[in-house]
Amino acid sequence: MSTPGTFTVNAQDGPARLGELHTAHGVVRTPAFMPVGTLGTVKSLCPQDLREAGSQIILGNTYHLYLRPGDELVARRGGLHKFMRWDGPILTDSGGFQVFSLSSLRKLTPDGVEFRSHLDGSKHFFSPEKVLDIQRNLGSDIMMVLDECVPYGADHAYTEKSLDLTHAWAKRSRENHEPGRNGQLLFGIVQGGFFKDLRERSAEAICSMGFEGHAIGGLSVGESTAEMYELMAHTAPLLPAEKPRYLMGVGKPLDILEGIANGIDMFDCVLPTRNARTGTLFTSQGQLNIKRAEFKEDDSPLDPQCSCYTCRTFSRAYLRHLFVAQELLSYRLNSIHNVHFFLELTRGAREAIAQGGFEAYHAHWRGVFGGGTE
Amino acid sequence: MSTPGTFTVNAQDGPARLGELHTAHGVVRTPAFMPVGTLGTVKSLCPQDLREAGSQIILGNTYHLYLRPGDELVARRGGLHKFMRWDGPILTDSGGFQVFSLSSLRKLTPDGVEFRSHLDGSKHFFSPEKVLDIQRNLGSDIMMVLDECVPYGADHAYTEKSLDLTHAWAKRSRENHEPGRNGQLLFGIVQGGFFKDLRERSAEAICSMGFEGHAIGGLSVGESTAEMYELMAHTAPLLPAEKPRYLMGVGKPLDILEGIANGIDMFDCVLPTRNARTGTLFTSQGQLNIKRAEFKEDDSPLDPQCSCYTCRTFSRAYLRHLFVAQELLSYRLNSIHNVHFFLELTRGAREAIAQGGFEAYHAHWRGVFGGGTE
Repeated sequence: MSTPGTFTVNAQDGPARLGELHTAHGVVRTPAFMPVGTLGTVKSLCPQDLREAGSQIILGNTYHLYLRPGDELVARRGGLHKFMRWDGPILTDSGGFQVFSLSSLRKLTPDGVEFRSHLDGSKHFFSPEKVLDIQRNLGSDIMMVLDECVPYGADHAYTEKSLDLTHAWAKRSRENHEPGRNGQLLFGIVQGGFFKDLRERSAEAICSMGFEGHAIGGLSVGESTAEMYELMAHTAPLLPAEKPRYLMGVGKPLDILEGIANGIDMFDCVLPTRNARTGTLFTSQGQLNIKRAEFKEDDSPLDPQCSCYTCRTFSRAYLRHLFVAQELLSYRLNSIHNVHFFLELTRGAREAIAQGGFEAYHAHWRGVFGGGTE
Repeated sequence: MSTPGTFTVNAQDGPARLGELHTAHGVVRTPAFMPVGTLGTVKSLCPQDLREAGSQIILGNTYHLYLRPGDELVARRGGLHKFMRWDGPILTDSGGFQVFSLSSLRKLTPDGVEFRSHLDGSKHFFSPEKVLDIQRNLGSDIMMVLDECVPYGADHAYTEKSLDLTHAWAKRSRENHEPGRNGQLLFGIVQGGFFKDLRERSAEAICSMGFEGHAIGGLSVGESTAEMYELMAHTAPLLPAEKPRYLMGVGKPLDILEGIANGIDMFDCVLPTRNARTGTLFTSQGQLNIKRAEFKEDDSPLDPQCSCYTCRTFSRAYLRHLFVAQELLSYRLNSIHNVHFFLELTRGAREAIAQGGFEAYHAHWRGVFGGGTE
């Protein structure tokens, strides 16, 4: 088995690339989509479901797991893999995004961020070192550094000042976690809001610190698709080609393909599972909401081109009935399908890149999802 | 394949008996527990889960399916088996129990019962013939006749008068559905409240009508365990030995074993799935609630003697975490276990009867669940 962190690019099709990232729990073929397992479970799914849907790697949320059941408890159980019985790779975020989006009464200091739990209002403190300790307790294969997530609309001055903090924290993170330690990789995060000069400065700073991979943070925070694509296209090529590139928290199917077209290798998003719970399903023919009356007597599978358990087994009429009746099974069957769809989308992208046909593949999906993603 | 309705008793151990009931969708080995699939799904479980847990036959609720998605819609889908993708036997109740327990503004006439939907207040009418039509639309293997479910505490006079209606409806039901029609069996229901003379009279009337099986209705409606056991012991031997006996809506593990000890062959209850959703789990060591703090760091399986997916895969600590975090996966994993437990309990009873050891088997479980069932 290769050293964790080894990343090889095996094929290239324009900026889009086909790669392999080695981790302590196996190889991730990229471009890869990571289903989000917030609290030690990808909502409504068990490890068997995830494997069957084609998951290679999943994401765990440091903020949530720190609060519940607690990272030290997870460490005493042998780590997150053992606790949730997922033996493939796990990436954990730094918790920063949740601190800035979920918790209240934040106090930012050079040393870290004080915040109150969204669950019970209790006070907590995250420093760059603390979130690495948490991620070590969780035993994740890929750890993320703590950063400040600047809200959408922040001005140049604020964003610039924030970068200093983010870069200082990144430096402390790398110092706290030397390469190769315990087989856990550490990824840096490029910020800079919606200012190209700041993105450039951040990429230069972050990419000089020797991380095993680089992420683009701070996108999909309220901006238009055009803005997101512009920033993505500007930032992705600034990240070194020999390391994996990860676009955090993005996104819709076309956003992911746009990322791949720009040379991004990894993605995560709650969309497949969150939309499953509202009945919004992604198919080879576009998006549909299963609660619509037109599906009441529709005996066809949700997506005739899909090979997931839901599509192989049940009709739209049955899925609509379950959703309307708010049956628990509805959320599981919808999630199985949506997660499978996102995994298939990226699997198809890998195949297309290998055959030099990514542009056509991208164009095909642009046709399906109507060109825009709003 | 034998004619649906064929029932053979292959072994006897005191009144407890080991049998086989043939239906259009396969053989049910008795004593059998039937998981309840109210709305075309045993809550949170898919057909694969049910098979893996050892389900032979499941129950569907006529009242609920009539209201949502509608029995005619189900018929147009090819029936309930095809709609929900369960190819084993299905028993449907008559809807009577739900009309009397869930809906409001009931009006009882000799012809049937008018009621309002618990969902939207809309008016509906069930007659003995109507509920058979619904069950024909659903395509169930075993249909139940409409009866009046007398509330607990009803006096002798009321209960006696109600019996006349119940018996008249049973007669009309049999006339409406001749034996063998369409491979669908029809079971009669013995009522009579908590009066032994009325139970005797009801058994005599119902069992003379030529049903393919006989049920005891009106138990588990608020009475004490002692009362239930006394009535059950009095009524069960009144039902002909050559037909299957079904104790409706019962019950806890010891209630089921008590029924088996009295020669009952079939049981259904929402307990395993309902309790799964409140965290109450049945194990070889008794009942436990998974939310209790003592399980926080408990790495052992929920039930070390259980072979279900939940117990084979996850720890009590993980199951507690999922339950406390109200994760959807919690309900599924708990349901898989509880349903498996009830199915194993009856499978074990079949084995014990075959070996002439049912009394010891019953005594063992009395020890586990503390003798009482309250």
